[in-house]
Amino acid sequence: MKGMEDWSRSDYCGEITKEQEGTEITLMGWVQRRRDHGGVIFTDLRDRFGLVQVVFSPEVNEDTFELADELRKEYVIAVKGKVKARPEAMINEELATGEVEVYASELKILAEAETPPFMIDDEIKTSEELRLKHRYLDLRRNPMQDNIKLRHNVKQAVREYLDDNRFLEVETPMLTKSTPEGARDFLVPSRVNKGKFYALPQSPQLFKQLLMVSGMDRYFQITRCFRDEDLRADRQPEFTQIDIEMSFMNQEDILDMIEGMIEEVFAAADIEEKLDFPQMSYEEAMKRYGTDRPDTRFDMELIDLSEIVADSDFNVFSGTVADGGQVKGINAKGCADFSRGDIDKLTDFVADYGAKGLAWIKVTEDGVESQIAKFLADEEIDAIIDKMSAEAGDLLLFVADNPKVVAASLGNLRLKLGEELDLIPEDEFDFLWVTDFPLLEWDEDEERYISLHHPFTMPKEEDIELLDEDPTAVKSQAYDLVLNGIEIGGGSIRIHDIDLQKKIFELLDMGADEVEEKFGFLLEAFKYGAPPHGGIAFGLDRLVMLLGNLNTIRDVIAFPKTQRATCLLTDAPSEVDEGQLGELALELEDLELD
Amino acid sequence: MKGMEDWSRSDYCGEITKEQEGTEITLMGWVQRRRDHGGVIFTDLRDRFGLVQVVFSPEVNEDTFELADELRKEYVIAVKGKVKARPEAMINEELATGEVEVYASELKILAEAETPPFMIDDEIKTSEELRLKHRYLDLRRNPMQDNIKLRHNVKQAVREYLDDNRFLEVETPMLTKSTPEGARDFLVPSRVNKGKFYALPQSPQLFKQLLMVSGMDRYFQITRCFRDEDLRADRQPEFTQIDIEMSFMNQEDILDMIEGMIEEVFAAADIEEKLDFPQMSYEEAMKRYGTDRPDTRFDMELIDLSEIVADSDFNVFSGTVADGGQVKGINAKGCADFSRGDIDKLTDFVADYGAKGLAWIKVTEDGVESQIAKFLADEEIDAIIDKMSAEAGDLLLFVADNPKVVAASLGNLRLKLGEELDLIPEDEFDFLWVTDFPLLEWDEDEERYISLHHPFTMPKEEDIELLDEDPTAVKSQAYDLVLNGIEIGGGSIRIHDIDLQKKIFELLDMGADEVEEKFGFLLEAFKYGAPPHGGIAFGLDRLVMLLGNLNTIRDVIAFPKTQRATCLLTDAPSEVDEGQLGELALELEDLELD
Repeated sequence: MKGMEDWSRSDYCGEITKEQEGTEITLMGWVQRRRDHGGVIFTDLRDRFGLVQVVFSPEVNEDTFELADELRKEYVIAVKGKVKARPEAMINEELATGEVEVYASELKILAEAETPPFMIDDEIKTSEELRLKHRYLDLRRNPMQDNIKLRHNVKQAVREYLDDNRFLEVETPMLTKSTPEGARDFLVPSRVNKGKFYALPQSPQLFKQLLMVSGMDRYFQITRCFRDEDLRADRQPEFTQIDIEMSFMNQEDILDMIEGMIEEVFAAADIEEKLDFPQMSYEEAMKRYGTDRPDTRFDMELIDLSEIVADSDFNVFSGTVADGGQVKGINAKGCADFSRGDIDKLTDFVADYGAKGLAWIKVTEDGVESQIAKFLADEEIDAIIDKMSAEAGDLLLFVADNPKVVAASLGNLRLKLGEELDLIPEDEFDFLWVTDFPLLEWDEDEERYISLHHPFTMPKEEDIELLDEDPTAVKSQAYDLVLNGIEIGGGSIRIHDIDLQKKIFELLDMGADEVEEKFGFLLEAFKYGAPPHGGIAFGLDRLVMLLGNLNTIRDVIAFPKTQRATCLLTDAPSEVDEGQLGELALELEDLELD
Repeated sequence: MKGMEDWSRSDYCGEITKEQEGTEITLMGWVQRRRDHGGVIFTDLRDRFGLVQVVFSPEVNEDTFELADELRKEYVIAVKGKVKARPEAMINEELATGEVEVYASELKILAEAETPPFMIDDEIKTSEELRLKHRYLDLRRNPMQDNIKLRHNVKQAVREYLDDNRFLEVETPMLTKSTPEGARDFLVPSRVNKGKFYALPQSPQLFKQLLMVSGMDRYFQITRCFRDEDLRADRQPEFTQIDIEMSFMNQEDILDMIEGMIEEVFAAADIEEKLDFPQMSYEEAMKRYGTDRPDTRFDMELIDLSEIVADSDFNVFSGTVADGGQVKGINAKGCADFSRGDIDKLTDFVADYGAKGLAWIKVTEDGVESQIAKFLADEEIDAIIDKMSAEAGDLLLFVADNPKVVAASLGNLRLKLGEELDLIPEDEFDFLWVTDFPLLEWDEDEERYISLHHPFTMPKEEDIELLDEDPTAVKSQAYDLVLNGIEIGGGSIRIHDIDLQKKIFELLDMGADEVEEKFGFLLEAFKYGAPPHGGIAFGLDRLVMLLGNLNTIRDVIAFPKTQRATCLLTDAPSEVDEGQLGELALELEDLELD
């Protein structure tokens, strides 16, 4: 195994063009393939920019040809050679460099390679576990290289846009104090201050607000955040956040600014779609889609039928309405041919969201077919059909329950059917700002109000007076950006008034001591002239995943952790010796083996 | 306290020009000063971009004038008003907006402010402790805003340059495995994997090498690193590193690439000096300056006199040489007038570095004056004067000892005198690449070899064969970038060969088990085709500090920690409740109170 000595790479493999015909070049990279044919050795040489065919022929250099016989897949080599145009018949249209090949006059083997545990191909059939264990090999594959490149481009675009708009990048501490984001903190024991702990930040929320108090005016940071959650679905214990805050801007100013950023991000991802950023209130989103992050790429909205059935003889419906509940339905267009079995499966599905049943009406050329038709008056059925714009061939599905259950069950049923019926255009990017969130909700379990966003969220000015009499009626100046039904960012105007902030803490049932200990420094800062301010934060991993049309954020993170929060490559976390713990004044409890 | 309602800022305070005369503008910011004069209230309004004078006159608007009477320092306000040119006599040349003032027609007080604990002025006399406790106020001051802006500009310039050169930004994990940088790791207990710990990275060294194995070709990241050291001098437990790695590049390629980056960084800092990047071997630096990070802004080099005095009758000198030691001197130009007391102080100073004494010769018009002249032959004195280019008025200072003590004592004495004699040009930027470091040194205490850089550093190809017979004679392909005597970056070509890497681990006295546990994944990666690669890392904090001509890295970090590793603003680290520790299966040992 040798170094490159005085060899110097002249070009990247994937960028050799016909215009270079006749020139001597030096390439370095990995052997993707090797074929022997007609007394000549053909290899595909690969680097980050693509492949080129390198030919070893005894007619060019006998020694080089013999050395080339040692080449195997993934060997790292350097070659000097001459660019030749391929004969017309040999042109490979599928390769960017398919018009040329390089006749090697010299070869240096820089590193040998054992057969990798999986092939370095675009499509591979191997477990994610093996990919993560050998991540350095997985990252050699084109799709992964594309993901890393996309992530790079997105970050550069974000920074350039914010820099152009006079934002300042400011770094905030990683070894900090527990933040109030609601999840568990990762703790870091201090050795210098034994018995005390830093927390890794769940977000730089308080620091960015303090930066506004310090007059930074516009702040951003693309930074790592940490949440020690039980890992559900597609979460990582550490994730990257695009964190933004501005002073002296109202909500509309901020949304405008962010829309401009998203447009730059899409341009950087080579997506040339005209983007549109409609707004919808939380209330309307819940009403029409049963969720605060609706996928607006398709219709099938939730239709409220409560008025129509309020006086119905069908007690399941009218009784629910009388008890303060709702009856809502969705129209599964063209699904009148669903079998009883099909519908039973949908019923099981909504049961997971608390629905006690799923009523249905099939609309046919000959009238309706339904288990509940006999309980409903003809006028009621007509009114339902009319309100749901139902036509022959449609299947109408109903849930009668309290608003939460109706929203969850029909909202999720809509998504399920949208997917199964292939109603969702794959290559569309539908944005939606969801606004006017409630400031607080009542938590039954904890018997106190909790913040829907976080305790620093500003109420709508006109609702502030409701804080005393009817807290849950207060709307906030909070906004989420939803893309294709996935929340990619969220933010708010913040409270900058010390008394209002204290009042919110009180409503959240926080005692004066707790407030002082956790947020005393923020309240102290507000004493000295805090500007009106607000901001937003985006989950970078998820954003890049959506831009890349990928299924998991693990594919846009170079070295992700598993669902068990372990790194299969380095074997982190791992045990440490007692001496290290002793320095931290810590002891490990006896652990029962799993 | 109110929000801005429908007010929208039209301009920044510091950017109002005479060209805007007569236009209506809306400004928002902080009241820097307020003066009442001739029935009119003058305020200086401040935002991130500067100050402008805002005038409240009853002739413009009586109500606004009356409201303005409430204004105090650091109130946050919004004003609407008209730009007027100041009369010639009132122009303030020292203010960017000194040609104009704004006559306010409307005023909104956005936030009141108590009197801050220190004034928001460029120069303040207050303890750093108070500044850190109220960092949000400290950051309002112009010098601190300039520092943050400089840091922003440097980071943007670095990224732009590297992006232009086709580097990819890749994020590496923060929750990772113990890295081998030599300092203590900060540990993060895992809750999901009880009894196990992540380590915060001391550097992304291994990950960036793996990224090279993965074919990323050129990587960079500006990332936080962590070292749990006893905090000496100007260190922080968390610091920011510009981390860079490249494949298929030799040392000269890499240095060229980095020099281009530094030039962009200086341009971004508005420093228009022609930069020069000379190289000097470690051996030469130690010989001439007694240190591997010489401050080359001034001369006063260490002169080796060992040959001259080897056979001297003065046994202190000749005996030292005979025992394998050295006699070296520096020429303190024009210091012949130093008193005995002055010289005694210098003797005490070098004693701290192990020197058993400091011999001296004063060169005068009438010959030499010295405590040692009588022991030296005239030819020896003449030869010394000649070799040290001494003239009348110079003071020659000598240390005779082993090379380490000579280097440390005279190297530091040189720096001390350089400073005291005002020999160091303040506004000069002198770079120096120090190269050809020894690969290993023998550690007397641990009785084993240790790496001068780190165990992944590539030996010089021609020295590899010396690894067996004479390990400390092996030079490495390592390089440090020194600026004005401060190391700002360091790196090396890395080993990419599995057998060579194993051999180095053996030399470092690491057992096979330890190697496997700590670096097994790296060695495994090298099996599958690792390209030649190398890189460098810069301490961003220190670099920005030097660019800003500042004395401490705390001034370029928005929220730094104290020497005790605490955050005075948030009071981190802090105690946590037992429940949190219980979830981590940890117990705190009983701590004795300090």
